[in-house]
Order: sequence, then C-alpha cells, then structure tokens
Amino acid sequence: MKAKIFIKYKEGILDPQGTVTNKALKSINIKGIDSMGIGKYIEIDFDKSVKKDDAISITKDSCNKLLVNPNTETYTFEIEE
Amino acid sequence: MKAKIFIKYKEGILDPQGTVTNKALKSINIKGIDSMGIGKYIEIDFDKSVKKDDAISITKDSCNKLLVNPNTETYTFEIEE
Repeated sequence: MKAKIFIKYKEGILDPQGTVTNKALKSINIKGIDSMGIGKYIEIDFDKSVKKDDAISITKDSCNKLLVNPNTETYTFEIEE
Repeated sequence: MKAKIFIKYKEGILDPQGTVTNKALKSINIKGIDSMGIGKYIEIDFDKSVKKDDAISITKDSCNKLLVNPNTETYTFEIEE
C-alpha cells in the first residue's frame, strides 16, 4: 500500500521559488506559462500489514503532525493499493 | 489549462530527506511506514491561448531543460483543462 501526498502553498502565500523558476524558463525561451508553484511530492510505502483505513489515518497524522505547515500550506493525497 | 508535475528520485538514489523524515515520524509515534521518498510537486498555469498539445510540449521542455535532473530524478505529469 502506498500514499502519494501533494503539498502546495495556500492561495496568496508568496512562492519565491516558483516565481524565480518561471523567470528562468522564460529566459531559456520556454513560453506560454502564466505562473507556477513549487511544492512537495511525498511517497509513503506502508508496512505490509497496513490496511487502507490505517493508511489513510497514518497519512493524515503524518501531514498534520509533521509534514505540512498548516499556516502556509495545503495538501491532498491518494492511496494506492 | 494546468500541468501537475511530480518529480522523484530514481530507484537506488539515496534520499536523505526521506530517510530522516521517516525517522522523525517514528519518533513521534506514527507507525506503519516502511519507507518514504520526498520529491517536488510543481503546478504550472498556462496562458489562456495555450492548447493541450502545446501544454504537453511546454511541460516536457520545462522538465528536460530545467526542472528535472535526468541523472538522479524521474518525472510524471498530468494535464488538466
């Protein structure tokens, strides 16, 4: 069982890395991008004994207690069997 | 039109941030995780004039020319309309 977690900045939070990377892409002549945001992509592999319900609660716990800063970030996740 | 890009380390490439974060989760008593990997999650918003085929080629160009290190990382992406 595997979880895929996608963490990004909340709307309105400044994302300097995204802004600078967008400029860098324009400077190497890649056009058509309005804006970009750079966040974190986390893959979790669970122990074999972990069932889907447990995987969901472990993922939420991990995000809320450690991985995500609730002041500035939001997250979504998917569980894959 | 929007692209979501998921970048992670290739199999076999050491991911120290993932290893340390896994330890940190165990230390706050979150159990059931075998291993984890931490990568990048990038969202691109395209200009309104960009069509789906263009979005795909801009995304691939951006990854191959700047965002992804082909020596150590792999990426996948999705286009959303």
